[in-house]
Amino acid sequence: MPLDRPLHDGYPGSMNALVLLAEGFEEIEATAIIDVLRRAGVTVTAAALGASPVRGSHGIALVADRSLDGLDTGTFDAVVLPGGMPGAKNLKEDARVRELVAKAAHDGKVVAAVCAGPIALAAAGVLAGRRATAYPGYELEGAVYSEERVVVDDNVVTSRGPGTVIEFSLALVEKLVGSAKAERLRRDMLVVAP
Amino acid sequence: MPLDRPLHDGYPGSMNALVLLAEGFEEIEATAIIDVLRRAGVTVTAAALGASPVRGSHGIALVADRSLDGLDTGTFDAVVLPGGMPGAKNLKEDARVRELVAKAAHDGKVVAAVCAGPIALAAAGVLAGRRATAYPGYELEGAVYSEERVVVDDNVVTSRGPGTVIEFSLALVEKLVGSAKAERLRRDMLVVAP
Repeated sequence: MPLDRPLHDGYPGSMNALVLLAEGFEEIEATAIIDVLRRAGVTVTAAALGASPVRGSHGIALVADRSLDGLDTGTFDAVVLPGGMPGAKNLKEDARVRELVAKAAHDGKVVAAVCAGPIALAAAGVLAGRRATAYPGYELEGAVYSEERVVVDDNVVTSRGPGTVIEFSLALVEKLVGSAKAERLRRDMLVVAP
Repeated sequence: MPLDRPLHDGYPGSMNALVLLAEGFEEIEATAIIDVLRRAGVTVTAAALGASPVRGSHGIALVADRSLDGLDTGTFDAVVLPGGMPGAKNLKEDARVRELVAKAAHDGKVVAAVCAGPIALAAAGVLAGRRATAYPGYELEGAVYSEERVVVDDNVVTSRGPGTVIEFSLALVEKLVGSAKAERLRRDMLVVAP
């Protein structure tokens, strides 16, 4: 469904993003998403599916901002899922996650996932007929599979792995804040020459 | 000083790296260094200068593997400093860090830093006459400044920012484990097409 309102109202900080942390998340991915969105002035809540700190797939534990339980997930402009295994499987198998992702997509919010994360979007039924990508080897039922590094299909944004996650995060910045901010960050972070 | 022994003895996991976490570290940088080195089979110890969890410059808190206090830093094959502010300033102003970095360099270990992190290497006196780089605007006293994204001068490896940190980490993998592993990870992580 199309976005029913402009996502960028011109005030940095006015956008809210929810990043979900499941045990076994990919650490570069989760960190880059949170870091880049905060650099863009987006208010990010990193919510743990279970206990916090949450341990990633390479043994790095992050402190979540809060627990998913009791969180009013209707207030977010974007829901973003890192990949990693078993993190993405844990996201996919969590009924709360499938429900909130389906609702967010239905409400025209940005729903996004990287690496193995898109399998949870597929399980929530939001990829049907959508162009999407994932880490090579993961099937996305119902989706029109693409091998691009970042795929933007209206409000659904997907990407492929740790090596593409900064580009993915900048695509989210472009969608939530605007392309000028994304271009500025691309230079500030030295993704391209300053 | 030149390396007095081969760093790669062919057994993944036989290399040990120390990553230092100071309050205000850059989260993408610290996470990518730890994650990529662990993917390469390097044993990584993320040590906190002070209390753990350690809060980064974008509000993400990481749980350190242990405290720097009481750690036998002579056992590491590499010492790696993330950037971020005030993280890099905190590294630079910590006498324990300057001492262990100077000793590691003197002993022919790999000493490495990214973004603002190289200012701590300069303060430790290990950049004198060395080719090195840092985030644009940071001066490196005594160094032969380069604007390359990753600069390898014998056992001293430096790089520029969040957008260059995966390349930097892969340069460390190349040095500690070998170029075949680095090339494999470059594809597995989708830094380049698989």
